[in-house]
Amino acid sequence: MQKAIGIFDSGIGGLTVLKEIIAKLPDENIIYLGDTARVPYGIRSPETVTRYSFENTRFLLSQEIKMLVVACNTASAISLEAVKKEFPLPVIGVLEPGARAAVAATRTGRVGVIGTEATIESKAYEKAIKKLAPDVVVHSLACPLFVQLAEEGWTENDVARLVAEKYLAPLRGLGIDTLVLGCTHYPLLKPVISGVMGEGIMLIDSATETAGEVADVLDKLKWRQPGEGIRKYYVTDTPTRFEKIGKRFLGDALLRAEQVKVGGV
Amino acid sequence: MQKAIGIFDSGIGGLTVLKEIIAKLPDENIIYLGDTARVPYGIRSPETVTRYSFENTRFLLSQEIKMLVVACNTASAISLEAVKKEFPLPVIGVLEPGARAAVAATRTGRVGVIGTEATIESKAYEKAIKKLAPDVVVHSLACPLFVQLAEEGWTENDVARLVAEKYLAPLRGLGIDTLVLGCTHYPLLKPVISGVMGEGIMLIDSATETAGEVADVLDKLKWRQPGEGIRKYYVTDTPTRFEKIGKRFLGDALLRAEQVKVGGV
Repeated sequence: MQKAIGIFDSGIGGLTVLKEIIAKLPDENIIYLGDTARVPYGIRSPETVTRYSFENTRFLLSQEIKMLVVACNTASAISLEAVKKEFPLPVIGVLEPGARAAVAATRTGRVGVIGTEATIESKAYEKAIKKLAPDVVVHSLACPLFVQLAEEGWTENDVARLVAEKYLAPLRGLGIDTLVLGCTHYPLLKPVISGVMGEGIMLIDSATETAGEVADVLDKLKWRQPGEGIRKYYVTDTPTRFEKIGKRFLGDALLRAEQVKVGGV
Repeated sequence: MQKAIGIFDSGIGGLTVLKEIIAKLPDENIIYLGDTARVPYGIRSPETVTRYSFENTRFLLSQEIKMLVVACNTASAISLEAVKKEFPLPVIGVLEPGARAAVAATRTGRVGVIGTEATIESKAYEKAIKKLAPDVVVHSLACPLFVQLAEEGWTENDVARLVAEKYLAPLRGLGIDTLVLGCTHYPLLKPVISGVMGEGIMLIDSATETAGEVADVLDKLKWRQPGEGIRKYYVTDTPTRFEKIGKRFLGDALLRAEQVKVGGV
């Protein structure tokens, strides 16, 4: 088997990124690791998220990968630099592609970012956007319940709408024209978020942007060695729940995952 | 220091149980462990929950405890028997006290139970109730979002009411007169749950029942050795979030916790 693209996420959310990578690079072999025994990362400390990221990376390296995608906004926001420093293979997070797309999209110079508590507290999006465009004003906001709504499948009902209205109210009237969906679960709530924010607001979905960057990097390195299009799914808890909910995320009715031991878990 | 009562929970929710134990046994020394690096347990497999329970118990035993309280419904539902078998000290879960109180309370012989996905799937409440009263009809229902609502502090707003109405609708019209709050987070939502279910429904809060059982067992063993009323809090992730949210659960503005290593975490 050709060396694969390795992807890890705290659990199921990274499947939205995987889906876009598959769409863009259907022949590449891909190995996905969902750390379902320790999900969610968004409520954990930076130290713990970094340790989990290292352990996930070590597992993927044992599976013969040529490139690593950190398909979790929290892990990207907190541990990407540390992972890059420790493991010298090409590493792509979901944060910088999203930041770049937001800077390219905004006309008013005012950008909103929503994500988990850990992502927002890290200020990583703010820093990434400011690095690209120091004059852009960034308004950040944690929306923790969105993750559970997506996992519950409540993405377009009245609860989703009410929660979105409550969370997003502080972002309205600030003149932002671009909103970064800074969590891999949030794209599932796009219609509701868009409905609350209004049609004039461009929603940036890191998944699409990240898939584009993965393709660009492989092209630049001339590492695009299309294989058999094999995809393997590993999880750290038993696979039942991942397979059940993952189908909704991936649109793949035959999703099958294998449980593995990663770090102390 | 006198030997303490050891309590573990997957995270913060067990503080509702701790609060009742403190109210009942204010002079006892208590050591609380919240496994915040691996919370929540309610979405994990039985194997993983059992492993985490064993690791938590081993940590508490290293801290000189005379008795163990498993203050987590998921861990009680799934791993209590295994924990009792492995560790021969007095072990009390939150499930049996709740089941007993429900059987004592019901007049119609129809009892509802709400809890996490893992607790409901285990059918542990159903079995415990049936063992005490084979004729009682039990209706069980998972309400996963309640945990996040409680942690978000959204316990009495319109989102809480809407979510409660959606979840609890299947339990209405079944003739139940008693509803077991089978998750340590749920007592925070009592007013909303009670509002949706109606005044005639008795809500069983495992926390109160469990505290009563702890006192009974200590009395029976003549192990009530009141100490200095010292309480120690340990967590497996950094303490910030636990201390912040824990204050709301415990009503103790000075809550301070220390991070420890438990199992592989």
